Amino acid sequence: MIPPKELLDFLKREGNFLIATHINPDGDGLGSAIALSTALRKLGKNTVLLCKDPVPQQYMFLPGQEKFVTLEQFTVHGSRITDFRNLILIDCNDIDRIATDKSQISNLKFQISAVIDHHESEKPFGNIRWVMPDSAATGLMIYHLIKELGIKLTSDMAVNLYAAIAVDTGNFRYENTSPEVLRAAADLIEAGAKPHAIYRWLFEAWSEGRFDLFMRVLNTLEKEDGIAIVKVTGKMFEVTSTSADDTEHFVEFLRIMKDVKVSVLFREIDDTYYKISLRSKDDINVARVAEAFGGGGHKNAAGCRIKADFETAKREILNRLKHEILPYAASHES
Amino acid sequence: MIPPKELLDFLKREGNFLIATHINPDGDGLGSAIALSTALRKLGKNTVLLCKDPVPQQYMFLPGQEKFVTLEQFTVHGSRITDFRNLILIDCNDIDRIATDKSQISNLKFQISAVIDHHESEKPFGNIRWVMPDSAATGLMIYHLIKELGIKLTSDMAVNLYAAIAVDTGNFRYENTSPEVLRAAADLIEAGAKPHAIYRWLFEAWSEGRFDLFMRVLNTLEKEDGIAIVKVTGKMFEVTSTSADDTEHFVEFLRIMKDVKVSVLFREIDDTYYKISLRSKDDINVARVAEAFGGGGHKNAAGCRIKADFETAKREILNRLKHEILPYAASHES
Repeated sequence: MIPPKELLDFLKREGNFLIATHINPDGDGLGSAIALSTALRKLGKNTVLLCKDPVPQQYMFLPGQEKFVTLEQFTVHGSRITDFRNLILIDCNDIDRIATDKSQISNLKFQISAVIDHHESEKPFGNIRWVMPDSAATGLMIYHLIKELGIKLTSDMAVNLYAAIAVDTGNFRYENTSPEVLRAAADLIEAGAKPHAIYRWLFEAWSEGRFDLFMRVLNTLEKEDGIAIVKVTGKMFEVTSTSADDTEHFVEFLRIMKDVKVSVLFREIDDTYYKISLRSKDDINVARVAEAFGGGGHKNAAGCRIKADFETAKREILNRLKHEILPYAASHES
Repeated sequence: MIPPKELLDFLKREGNFLIATHINPDGDGLGSAIALSTALRKLGKNTVLLCKDPVPQQYMFLPGQEKFVTLEQFTVHGSRITDFRNLILIDCNDIDRIATDKSQISNLKFQISAVIDHHESEKPFGNIRWVMPDSAATGLMIYHLIKELGIKLTSDMAVNLYAAIAVDTGNFRYENTSPEVLRAAADLIEAGAKPHAIYRWLFEAWSEGRFDLFMRVLNTLEKEDGIAIVKVTGKMFEVTSTSADDTEHFVEFLRIMKDVKVSVLFREIDDTYYKISLRSKDDINVARVAEAFGGGGHKNAAGCRIKADFETAKREILNRLKHEILPYAASHES
């Protein structure tokens, strides 16, 4: 994986960079942005780390996360914007992804915009684009970029990049776990990343309330034809002092059952409005199901919203899902 | 990691080998033994795979597992024993570990016994010993051994060795996840191991009954001073059609809570007799707690039995645990 020459030239030539990642930031976006910022500072560059939202609790362990400024903190100091001729977008490939609406970024103007990302690209934003959908994580790209720039990996960079890769590979359990991923992770351990400590920070730091919520949600489990359904209500958030963020990984957990082909989480917005998260195994395409209700996503992970009471919404989703599972089941039996 | 010359010479020189792993076999023992057997057969050797117990359900995906014979199957054919001059013990280092009592193996006599293991060694059993407590898995040692013998890794060997390493590193999340582990795993993917598929076979193949049992056990959760306690009863096994094997990983799961320092599973043998599993984080030594009740284990994973009703047994364990946690908490505050 070799970064484009024009990206390397740009980073070597210019003196200051605004490094921004997407809204609702995750470990790959945050860790990649921090590691790149830290590396560029080793070259004597000036950098600012930008994210619309504050760093979520579970990523507070990333060394350097405290340097992030929010879009609000950044844009109130209007004068500072002109300091930054150069933008680097991390883990997203369109500038719209760094704000919730365009008015928030309408006064940002850059001479050069670079994009470093591993998501599929829809719009051709940016003068310099390094977009690799085949890369398991943006963190893996930054790892190669830092090596190519001839910068020695510090322990802080290694922790950020290891965390980035661990988040986007599900700690080396998803299909994107390639030999290249594991060899990069090996180098990062040698540079100072501690796999066990990072795993605990990322995946084993649930609050008591979150565990309580998890139990309440699992206790709503219904199963039908290989489809596992659970529900979370506003009342549950209230009594456990938790929020929607705390439901992360709940729907994936149901995959632990061998006979579950699809898992579904219904999150109550109000009692006639539900946000639905869908996860599937193998070739079952839940993106198509989500699209049927105006949502979207990937083949094995998608989401949508339905305006209806729970029983109606559940019935609609189940009917559409069975339609999706049926030909798959048939083709596997033939 | 280089295997001893006398082990390499032994494997090259001799023509037939009995390859045995320990009772209650796990993925590391089974995968390592199968991979070594497959490799030696590539060299034209005759091998028999031996394990006292049948291969557990979750390891049925290992290619070649069907070649295992049980101790009973093996010893009834008394005449065949003399065919095997050579024993290789895998993932254990004393011959007593391949049977539940000595009478079962008293008629086994070997000219040469080799030991390949990563557990601490207590007795000096065997003529050729390769025991490396610093190795994350026996599978990692077999990987190096196969390379050193100049045998090309086949896809079947790779799946067995990847599974062995994945089991003993908790899919690369335990402290033993070293650069060497990840680089070996990378090579094994290149040789044909599929990380995602292996993860699913190992960790996401719960039966419906097991999930039901899990919920019932978690619903018994009590917490006190950072100690999480759950209980499983004979009645629960009965109504969910499960057995003690199905509780594997339950006690570890409670670690997901940030404020849990120690987790404890009480398994009812009868209503005045409990088997207790203890897990701890960081420097809290639960082996000392287990030893106080006549049990044992490692610093962070230990077990014991108590003859008492649940409330009494719980109180005794809690008192002893608090004694263990106290100085640790104090030293961390000072």
